[in-house]
Amino acid sequence: MGYTAAVAGASGYVGGELLRLLLAHPDIEVGALTAGGNAGTRLGQHHPHLVPLADRVLAETTPETLSGHDIVFLALPHGQSAALAARLDEDTLVVDCGADFRLTDAAAWKRFYGSDHAGTWPYGLPELPGARGALARTRRIAVPGCYPTCGTLALLPALAEELVEPEAVVVAASGTSGAGKAAKPHLIASEVMGSASVYGVGGAHRHNPEFTQNLSAVAGVPVRVSFTPVLVPMPRGILATCSAPLRPGVDADAARAAYLRHYDAEPFVHLLPGGSWPTTAMTLGANTAIVQVTVDDAAGRLVAVAAIDNLTKGTAGGAIQSANIALGLPETTGLPMTGVAP
Amino acid sequence: MGYTAAVAGASGYVGGELLRLLLAHPDIEVGALTAGGNAGTRLGQHHPHLVPLADRVLAETTPETLSGHDIVFLALPHGQSAALAARLDEDTLVVDCGADFRLTDAAAWKRFYGSDHAGTWPYGLPELPGARGALARTRRIAVPGCYPTCGTLALLPALAEELVEPEAVVVAASGTSGAGKAAKPHLIASEVMGSASVYGVGGAHRHNPEFTQNLSAVAGVPVRVSFTPVLVPMPRGILATCSAPLRPGVDADAARAAYLRHYDAEPFVHLLPGGSWPTTAMTLGANTAIVQVTVDDAAGRLVAVAAIDNLTKGTAGGAIQSANIALGLPETTGLPMTGVAP
Amino acid sequence: MGYTAAVAGASGYVGGELLRLLLAHPDIEVGALTAGGNAGTRLGQHHPHLVPLADRVLAETTPETLSGHDIVFLALPHGQSAALAARLDEDTLVVDCGADFRLTDAAAWKRFYGSDHAGTWPYGLPELPGARGALARTRRIAVPGCYPTCGTLALLPALAEELVEPEAVVVAASGTSGAGKAAKPHLIASEVMGSASVYGVGGAHRHNPEFTQNLSAVAGVPVRVSFTPVLVPMPRGILATCSAPLRPGVDADAARAAYLRHYDAEPFVHLLPGGSWPTTAMTLGANTAIVQVTVDDAAGRLVAVAAIDNLTKGTAGGAIQSANIALGLPETTGLPMTGVAP
Amino acid sequence: MGYTAAVAGASGYVGGELLRLLLAHPDIEVGALTAGGNAGTRLGQHHPHLVPLADRVLAETTPETLSGHDIVFLALPHGQSAALAARLDEDTLVVDCGADFRLTDAAAWKRFYGSDHAGTWPYGLPELPGARGALARTRRIAVPGCYPTCGTLALLPALAEELVEPEAVVVAASGTSGAGKAAKPHLIASEVMGSASVYGVGGAHRHNPEFTQNLSAVAGVPVRVSFTPVLVPMPRGILATCSAPLRPGVDADAARAAYLRHYDAEPFVHLLPGGSWPTTAMTLGANTAIVQVTVDDAAGRLVAVAAIDNLTKGTAGGAIQSANIALGLPETTGLPMTGVAP
Repeated sequence: MGYTAAVAGASGYVGGELLRLLLAHPDIEVGALTAGGNAGTRLGQHHPHLVPLADRVLAETTPETLSGHDIVFLALPHGQSAALAARLDEDTLVVDCGADFRLTDAAAWKRFYGSDHAGTWPYGLPELPGARGALARTRRIAVPGCYPTCGTLALLPALAEELVEPEAVVVAASGTSGAGKAAKPHLIASEVMGSASVYGVGGAHRHNPEFTQNLSAVAGVPVRVSFTPVLVPMPRGILATCSAPLRPGVDADAARAAYLRHYDAEPFVHLLPGGSWPTTAMTLGANTAIVQVTVDDAAGRLVAVAAIDNLTKGTAGGAIQSANIALGLPETTGLPMTGVAP
Repeated sequence: MGYTAAVAGASGYVGGELLRLLLAHPDIEVGALTAGGNAGTRLGQHHPHLVPLADRVLAETTPETLSGHDIVFLALPHGQSAALAARLDEDTLVVDCGADFRLTDAAAWKRFYGSDHAGTWPYGLPELPGARGALARTRRIAVPGCYPTCGTLALLPALAEELVEPEAVVVAASGTSGAGKAAKPHLIASEVMGSASVYGVGGAHRHNPEFTQNLSAVAGVPVRVSFTPVLVPMPRGILATCSAPLRPGVDADAARAAYLRHYDAEPFVHLLPGGSWPTTAMTLGANTAIVQVTVDDAAGRLVAVAAIDNLTKGTAGGAIQSANIALGLPETTGLPMTGVAP
Repeated sequence: MGYTAAVAGASGYVGGELLRLLLAHPDIEVGALTAGGNAGTRLGQHHPHLVPLADRVLAETTPETLSGHDIVFLALPHGQSAALAARLDEDTLVVDCGADFRLTDAAAWKRFYGSDHAGTWPYGLPELPGARGALARTRRIAVPGCYPTCGTLALLPALAEELVEPEAVVVAASGTSGAGKAAKPHLIASEVMGSASVYGVGGAHRHNPEFTQNLSAVAGVPVRVSFTPVLVPMPRGILATCSAPLRPGVDADAARAAYLRHYDAEPFVHLLPGGSWPTTAMTLGANTAIVQVTVDDAAGRLVAVAAIDNLTKGTAGGAIQSANIALGLPETTGLPMTGVAP
Repeated sequence: MGYTAAVAGASGYVGGELLRLLLAHPDIEVGALTAGGNAGTRLGQHHPHLVPLADRVLAETTPETLSGHDIVFLALPHGQSAALAARLDEDTLVVDCGADFRLTDAAAWKRFYGSDHAGTWPYGLPELPGARGALARTRRIAVPGCYPTCGTLALLPALAEELVEPEAVVVAASGTSGAGKAAKPHLIASEVMGSASVYGVGGAHRHNPEFTQNLSAVAGVPVRVSFTPVLVPMPRGILATCSAPLRPGVDADAARAAYLRHYDAEPFVHLLPGGSWPTTAMTLGANTAIVQVTVDDAAGRLVAVAAIDNLTKGTAGGAIQSANIALGLPETTGLPMTGVAP
């Protein structure tokens, strides 16, 4: 137990997933648990599945309650991390699960989030080229959005090796936990069960600029991305169906070879054997991304599919993976490689 | 009750949906109910929700049991309709819910279905240009596939009015009933609930040539289509997210205007008010297609989304809609305009 | 179209289901649609599945907006019906889908609802002995609760024919729409999907006194009832598993014979063939109750199971069934006998 | 890694769950994986969520492939364990997840399973009085059925402390994975999603004699049990709603005190704070049972509810818990105390 970690926003879904994973982490001990409106309540009220922490009472989220830890995980609504982080010790490892420090483009931030840009922190997707080096040297980490994590891992080898033109279509089916715990009319069970729906269509979703940023960085040229999220009746999981126009001469074997090269050594990215395709059930509760690729000659497109658990690899697990790197621990420490199925 | 209808394949999902709708049809009386392996059993065993027909016993599917009706609906595995239809009276209206007579391209049929092409019947998607005329004069109707119905209705105005380049990406989330009633390991509830998955990726699904046929007919030029079906945990419904590269100068208003022009008079296609997006729940049990369209300027694509119930507008309802036309009845006769929600 | 009907509370789930059914009713025309907080909005915003009424604007719920109709259906939170009903014409048929006028026992009302008892109207469960006569003569109808409808139909013949001792255990699995459309934290999809839960345990649910009232009326002696509702991940449907101690000499054949006698002529209660058991899917969208009974000799109990759609037979359909009786129409007019499955 | 374990029946759900848990067990190493019809295939084909074992090939289930391990877990269809176990070394710890050795009453076995009784092994529910002692001394363990595990833990303190009469009603909602992986028509997703159903009604389910055996052992007198399983649309989880007639003078406080006494020191049984009730989501993937109790004075019954994950505490986790005891390891070794929610 070398390190202690505070979790701000412990009563939400991301906070709960961080705690579930930290309870199994051999080198990190759970410290302060804080919340906003839920301060003063028992954790067991919000996360009865976390039996060992059920009687812990949530403190208020303040710089004081969070101080004195080696690591602070922020699981807050966007816009709240900057002020808090500014008052945390520079030596504290601050891992922001929100959006505030993900984007490098201040104008894009303003356009999609409406407020002034808080800045940019090293981006916590270790599988991106160069990311591990930056994460190893930082005390501040911006955890990626769940959709960009999934879609970027699906398309990374294709764009990095120039198998496709720099334009992508991503349609991603997602479970409901990505929308958080707030009770909104369109998210009540009666509306969701038995129904699939789209939202943020036509480039309106806030993960759009993050997609553009990631895929362009991988490709080395600007990539145009059409991204549509689809809400489907399951609590967890994202399945991203991604495609892009094939460059001449690229066939299925070349595509597969590129994906194997890129992902063979990645501990949390698993390329399925040929002919098998990802399902979100394969990843439930695990920090894995399951990937497959093929080409559609008639349509002239490469098609890649990735599945993740939006709360694990998509947020809390990815956060701990990056924290492991920043702490100098083995990257896989304490992170589940297996899902819970069926 | 001007007409009588036999239903071949009455124990399957399409057969059951045909019967549900026919029970509410004022001008068609349910006649013979036939089946293959389930011949001799009570209908109530297979469709306990069809209480008024629960005690009807299924006859064997033969030309003899089907003869003597004004209409014969065939809800059979593909490859079985041709031989049967050949032995039915030429004056009988034969409506094939299977794939056998949908494609005009014999080579495409052979490639995707493996057998020799049986022929081509008038295609039962009344919303396609020219379709109503052909349906009014025929005694043989090929009911479209559920995915092509949904995707074609999503993209029809965009391609017909040349708002987009002739290449489309369709990613369609579907409920499980489209896979039929056969018990296959990947379709058992434990595997499906809580999970999203893809199949037929890379142009492998049999509905690919039908997509190409429909969209090319609408566009007047060959259209390349990348189609990926996504299985999501719900019994019914298809939500097709479709996009295509915008032609210069096309904006959201122009797109919407085109869709309004095409669909304003269509009884079963409902363009939502701006800002609202389709959900499959809106269509459950109804013969409606719910559509919305926008443009993504940053990505340079038009994005259109359509929702249908795969068993109703996607198969059995569409079949009856086309049959109404062929019989000279008002097209909407007996078909539900409202879904069952939540 | 002999009659017009107003629907108060049209934006909720019961209001929506009333409208879905009224649109298919040959003798009732939809009149005013009213709401509380949602007054002034389009119906299509709340019930996009009701395409033909999508552009109707909701009026405010007042005696004035509701007046001038032959029938007024009230689908309001409990406690709001009495004041409104007092100001509606005595000749207007007022059908209250809420709880206000269900109970005969003022003390029980006070204990479970906390307010003063508003009174008692004829109880709209036509299958109860004597109910049809009372309904035929009234202009005021109290629609039963969904759980009591289901559980009462399950146990009615057993208690009426004294097959069992007057004490019953009812455990009823329910979909989420019974909880209405209000966004509450424990009803969001992420919490409900993949989970079963109990509530109102130990006699705390408000339907308890209604159970006692119904079952005691049937038995002719006071019946003790232990009722536990179980929330399960589906939008609609109630499956009530009911049992009671067998009286000496009662076997499965006797039980079945009693159920057949009671339900053979009931248009909306369907006793399954021996060996088949109800599922809620059999009733989705239908006004049917599906019932089965057996005895457990080892446990010394009769076990009866009933399934209904909580919004149809359980509320809106039952309301129209009773209204049909009060209007002198055939009881089955306009009510679906078939469910939507799968 | 003191011990090695073979898993027979590795391709099924219980086998998969055993492997998921064993991968996280610090003292047990996964040895041979065997199967029946699936011998020769990759484990990844059956359990793609078990990424670290994906490329292991299944051997055939024989005494030879299973020999040479410290522990053999049998996850086989009932009736297959006896012959196999007879040929395994007496010093090998054999843990049978099937039903073969659970019952002490040979006649009950014959009546419910149809074959001759194979014998009785120490019963692997450590929370039963006296169970831990027997398990500590044995090399043969019969893992309880999932329903009896859940219902017994719900009622144990009430019967042990004579709070209730010796007759119980258990209605247990279950996810589908308890039915295993075989593709049966009523278990396909289209049939299950959106529907609740009963089966094995009237004392017909094979877990009935096991309920009687457990509850009678706890009570010290014969207990009559009425048990009804309810299938609900979720992959995992059992929620047992249990009740029994109160003895005179027992109130809610006395009931709670008894439950606290019994469960305070149990590592895997968690009594919720007063007013909170179990949900299956609290237990998903965990080896915990979540319990609550109250009394219904009007009905004169004690009502207790327990939730478990049928595959974890209900089978594979319970199996490892008992194995830990038999091996002399701390009982909680390697077993998850936290669920995966939402």
